[in-house]
Amino acid sequence: MKSSRFQSFEDVSQPEKARERITALRKIMDAKGLAAWVLPRTDAWRNEYLRACDERLAWLTGFTGSAGLLIVLKEQAALFVDGRYTLQAAEQVDGDVITVLPVADHRPVDWLAERMEQGGKAGFDPWLMSRAEVRRWRQKLERKGATFVPVLPDPVDALWEDRPPPPEGKIFLHPERFAGMAVAGKLELVRKRLSETDADHVLITGTESTSWLFNIRGHDIPHTPVVLGWSLVPAEGMAELFVEPGKVPEEVSEALSEVAFIRPVQALEARLRELGERGARVLVDEGHAAEELLRILDEAGATTVTGQDPCILPKACKTEAEQAGARVAHARDGAALARFLCWLETAAADGSVDEIAAAVKLEEFRVDTAERVGEPLFDLSFDTISAAGPHGAIVHYRVTTRSNRPLRPGELYLVDSGGQYRDGTTDVTRTVFVGPPGMKPDAEMRRHYTLVLKGMIALSRVRFPKGTTGANLDALARQFLWAAGLDYDHGTGHGVGSFLSVHEGPQNISRIGRAEFRPGMITSNEPGFYLEGRYGIRIENLILCREPTRRAENEREMMSFETLTLCPVDRRLIDMTLLEPDERAWLDGYHRHVREALSPLLEGDAETLAWLERACAPLRR
Amino acid sequence: MKSSRFQSFEDVSQPEKARERITALRKIMDAKGLAAWVLPRTDAWRNEYLRACDERLAWLTGFTGSAGLLIVLKEQAALFVDGRYTLQAAEQVDGDVITVLPVADHRPVDWLAERMEQGGKAGFDPWLMSRAEVRRWRQKLERKGATFVPVLPDPVDALWEDRPPPPEGKIFLHPERFAGMAVAGKLELVRKRLSETDADHVLITGTESTSWLFNIRGHDIPHTPVVLGWSLVPAEGMAELFVEPGKVPEEVSEALSEVAFIRPVQALEARLRELGERGARVLVDEGHAAEELLRILDEAGATTVTGQDPCILPKACKTEAEQAGARVAHARDGAALARFLCWLETAAADGSVDEIAAAVKLEEFRVDTAERVGEPLFDLSFDTISAAGPHGAIVHYRVTTRSNRPLRPGELYLVDSGGQYRDGTTDVTRTVFVGPPGMKPDAEMRRHYTLVLKGMIALSRVRFPKGTTGANLDALARQFLWAAGLDYDHGTGHGVGSFLSVHEGPQNISRIGRAEFRPGMITSNEPGFYLEGRYGIRIENLILCREPTRRAENEREMMSFETLTLCPVDRRLIDMTLLEPDERAWLDGYHRHVREALSPLLEGDAETLAWLERACAPLRR
Repeated sequence: MKSSRFQSFEDVSQPEKARERITALRKIMDAKGLAAWVLPRTDAWRNEYLRACDERLAWLTGFTGSAGLLIVLKEQAALFVDGRYTLQAAEQVDGDVITVLPVADHRPVDWLAERMEQGGKAGFDPWLMSRAEVRRWRQKLERKGATFVPVLPDPVDALWEDRPPPPEGKIFLHPERFAGMAVAGKLELVRKRLSETDADHVLITGTESTSWLFNIRGHDIPHTPVVLGWSLVPAEGMAELFVEPGKVPEEVSEALSEVAFIRPVQALEARLRELGERGARVLVDEGHAAEELLRILDEAGATTVTGQDPCILPKACKTEAEQAGARVAHARDGAALARFLCWLETAAADGSVDEIAAAVKLEEFRVDTAERVGEPLFDLSFDTISAAGPHGAIVHYRVTTRSNRPLRPGELYLVDSGGQYRDGTTDVTRTVFVGPPGMKPDAEMRRHYTLVLKGMIALSRVRFPKGTTGANLDALARQFLWAAGLDYDHGTGHGVGSFLSVHEGPQNISRIGRAEFRPGMITSNEPGFYLEGRYGIRIENLILCREPTRRAENEREMMSFETLTLCPVDRRLIDMTLLEPDERAWLDGYHRHVREALSPLLEGDAETLAWLERACAPLRR
Repeated sequence: MKSSRFQSFEDVSQPEKARERITALRKIMDAKGLAAWVLPRTDAWRNEYLRACDERLAWLTGFTGSAGLLIVLKEQAALFVDGRYTLQAAEQVDGDVITVLPVADHRPVDWLAERMEQGGKAGFDPWLMSRAEVRRWRQKLERKGATFVPVLPDPVDALWEDRPPPPEGKIFLHPERFAGMAVAGKLELVRKRLSETDADHVLITGTESTSWLFNIRGHDIPHTPVVLGWSLVPAEGMAELFVEPGKVPEEVSEALSEVAFIRPVQALEARLRELGERGARVLVDEGHAAEELLRILDEAGATTVTGQDPCILPKACKTEAEQAGARVAHARDGAALARFLCWLETAAADGSVDEIAAAVKLEEFRVDTAERVGEPLFDLSFDTISAAGPHGAIVHYRVTTRSNRPLRPGELYLVDSGGQYRDGTTDVTRTVFVGPPGMKPDAEMRRHYTLVLKGMIALSRVRFPKGTTGANLDALARQFLWAAGLDYDHGTGHGVGSFLSVHEGPQNISRIGRAEFRPGMITSNEPGFYLEGRYGIRIENLILCREPTRRAENEREMMSFETLTLCPVDRRLIDMTLLEPDERAWLDGYHRHVREALSPLLEGDAETLAWLERACAPLRR
């Protein structure tokens, strides 16, 4: 097997250790008089991807999914996971020790409240829950006469003997030619928002926000180049950046010397106490900030004002430079994908390629293409979902040496992947038919694929006025599946950062997406369909929200999306009888644009160029 | 002019009195040390239609729209209205005394906060604002060092010398054959919801809720047969209904004798104090309940638990009997509309019918048709919007003797109307072309009409899963207009009660409709398009949400809508080149259904039957 630089296919799950570890945790609970321990999968900054040293939930249970919450009682332990992870969690944990419960059927807080007795104490690590969460849990438990108490240090840390050390990679600058705005300008935006509240400081707790604000990036978290740290911006005067002092090279401290004091993370608590003693009014996002930070502020006498992190919105609305960078990064990424799909069409036709080999090959094409034509690949933007046949129906499938299987002729292959380039972050999914020339997908596959495609096209083409939210747009992508009695159990789109996190708000396209779309936002457009035990279909492009424009004087201004992702969709899977003429025209136009954009980057690669020509030719009825 | 039983076309606005009345109000403000007075248009139950004696805002300013808020300062008075009313308000009030401001550009609370000085006092009537509103206003004003103080009695009442007396109509029973559920069963539902909270009583402050809960109706409010009153439901034991004692006939007190004590409204305050003294926990909807009620509870020592009124959801999900009643009521109403549209086609062709004459004629057809074929017309469900030509572009146009104009050949006529029948409430809008045979609407009218129609059809046909909200469905109705750079500035649909209010939540179809659709909900489907100074187009049907069904084993359950409204749409206005084959098929099917449903009710009326036949014939390319 080829080696991979950016991802591991080992199954690191150790379900066999759960019994012993949870027993040890229960001893600590006993010693502290706790009837329950609540452990969500997150870190002190609420990241989605965690450092190995923050993977407490995986260490304790064996479950390696990206979202979950464990409640340990004296006689019982329950792991709550969402629909993406019910199958995986059941496979990964020891069912004798831990019961897996879907959150859709069991709200963890209600489940716990039902099991608490009058006077009982449930404990949690106040670095791992937000103020808003703690308030909700506390209220529910208090109704049962129970209490919800913060416990530090985290008892899991005390048990975790072979805990990996935190990563030590240095912080580096994200130059203005990529960011499109100097730190001073960003601070001005933040201060303007601050002036609209009655707070005199803002404490920024999101790592994407701090990284964006100071135009810095880091090596702490796999796939997401954020800097782990906090920042504090006063209404007037120097900002403060709290990070590990050993991670700040000269170049960074110099670049920030006029706008911010760089302080060690250890100094944050003292600084917050000082603010409290001075009676400061601190803007904090209670839905995000760790309870512990708010507890410190409260105790010290600060007034906290709750409100959205003022970086969220300007960070989501990409600058001209970020938009231009995204276009270039997507062309580079599309060229790599074209090389991969061209290779796959032949190599996999006889069933001789497996999921890991495909993922490794795709990574190699990304590394190699980037080296040839521009910014190097910094990292993948997440672990590649390389899913053959029935694995495609597991929405967040991650191939391991244990689950690995070949791409078999006659099956579908779903590949969801992306790259972190310094000029932009990509995230793209294609579903292709595997098999030798002449072999055809069956009618049902084609019908399902085409219904998904129609939804993807509807979102790509929609025009909409200011004020439109993701909840408004979501049904446009689902309507064709709905009409056929079908649907998919995930959102239609998530915001994407600029050389930052591949999942970034505030906008998303889903039933409950409340943020309004604004020019410059980059979002995924990824409807899907999943037939358990058979196959999964997902087609994902990133789309950039355009400035509103008016086409005629008596019309209104409408926004629309520019599709950034450049990669053909598999024409063998399209049922042409289900496409309307205007949908076909859109797809032909998209393919023409893909061919024009990628061809120059593939010069000299005759095989891929010929493949691209075929893949992007106009559709025939 | 023919007379009308249910509506008046007089312009009762008295803008010339505003100066004197506001000056008198300022004297009271001075005496009480108030720098500002805040007067929203509502009553103590937050009704949309008000008793004449509650029309404080109209009396003070001359503005008769259904939503508005006045702020009187010492030197200035501002009336805040939404987009529907900016034109009307500017016409109705004396601009030298009152400035009209659109709420979209000026949030009243911010506007006031900017104008308050440190230590200043702004006053309000605590019966006219909810706890949630008061909290918001208070917070904003406190930041300026100002206070927001409740004042009783309302100073406007002290000035209003010729104030009309409250109506005295008796309460009457809404029999179970219409309601479909006995009071005992409804109380059980409410108690079940109550048991899911930690409250021991619920105070119900909505008049639709109290009327629904006790299967009673009244004559207090024009067009909306609610009973003005409050109810209190304990977790166990008899409920209590607080109403004017003189309005309760023997029949009603007997019918309720086993489930509720009927108490005079005057006893509510004492009862709430008693609850408080006993340390009761009272569930109240803080977004709805008058501040004064919560103040009484607080003062008496009760704990208030905020939560949605437990009647809202079961009231919205109509019983089988209510659904069956709605179908019958809509057929009756459709027959009246068919007679009207048939009459109009000929009578108005030469321009000899004006807006008032048309509205009166429609009312006559409603009264007469109902007398012949079923339940009599109890009332209109709102003042008919009878809007010719450019008046159609005023979304909430209400014709008065002053604004009245003829329906001119070559113009569009928009008529939005409805009836209150004891078996159901209707609300329907049709837009028709006015002119002699052979005269044709221009291409732009037809294009606009067809884009609106396509949206209406899209919502009529949509299938959607459990969990879908109005915000999700809204764009389906707007997508065709959006694609053409057009839109409309109102929601796409509102919930409708069952012989209750024509505007009832929780569901609505709009950008921000957060309630999930559930089987049994009746909602309007009314996209539109408005070209200022030229015409307005709106097509409105009521739609009933069906139970989810699965069409095949490997499909999911999907909900859909049954269209209740039975009335042809004007085929002269359709641009056939813009309709897809499946849209045409839907409309042909709808017209076939309309013809079959209405024909039996029109027996003997050869002229209307012939018109119906023509109006419902299959469309030709």
